[in-house]
Amino acid sequence: MSKQDDAQLRIAELRAQIDDIDEKIVRLLNERAYQALAIRELKPEAQLGLYDPKREEEIFERLASFNEGPLFSDDLRTIYSTILRVSKEMRA
Amino acid sequence: MSKQDDAQLRIAELRAQIDDIDEKIVRLLNERAYQALAIRELKPEAQLGLYDPKREEEIFERLASFNEGPLFSDDLRTIYSTILRVSKEMRA
Repeated sequence: MSKQDDAQLRIAELRAQIDDIDEKIVRLLNERAYQALAIRELKPEAQLGLYDPKREEEIFERLASFNEGPLFSDDLRTIYSTILRVSKEMRA
Repeated sequence: MSKQDDAQLRIAELRAQIDDIDEKIVRLLNERAYQALAIRELKPEAQLGLYDPKREEEIFERLASFNEGPLFSDDLRTIYSTILRVSKEMRA
């Protein structure tokens, strides 16, 4: 097998691993969305506003606190800004 | 306990569950980043371009294929666009 074929095979293997990881991430994102919808329903009764910048900051700080890389905490902040925005715009 | 206190307590419990989910998501995002970096290193030898729109479309389609909601597949596409962008910009 040529070095090129070998590298292509190895990439295919790594992509299969990424596909497995993505299935787990999607399951967790959906679990997270369920909890976020439940929280949203409770907010009027709890007399809390729908948007809570303090909670968002708390989330970003927690993510950074247990981040072991290779992603930087700023990368996680970028990804989670999108997750939280999608979460806020979710239809119930 | 008032209904307001009760709702606030329930929100705190749900947020604790979200915190646990976030720890798992961050671990998986970092695993994913490791594999993506390994793929990037192999690409020159495999004679593949660094940016592969076909692979991105394949990822979006796979996500939609096993998505059970409550997130819509468009929501996953939005979140993953950010994940893939961060992944491409990652320093090795």
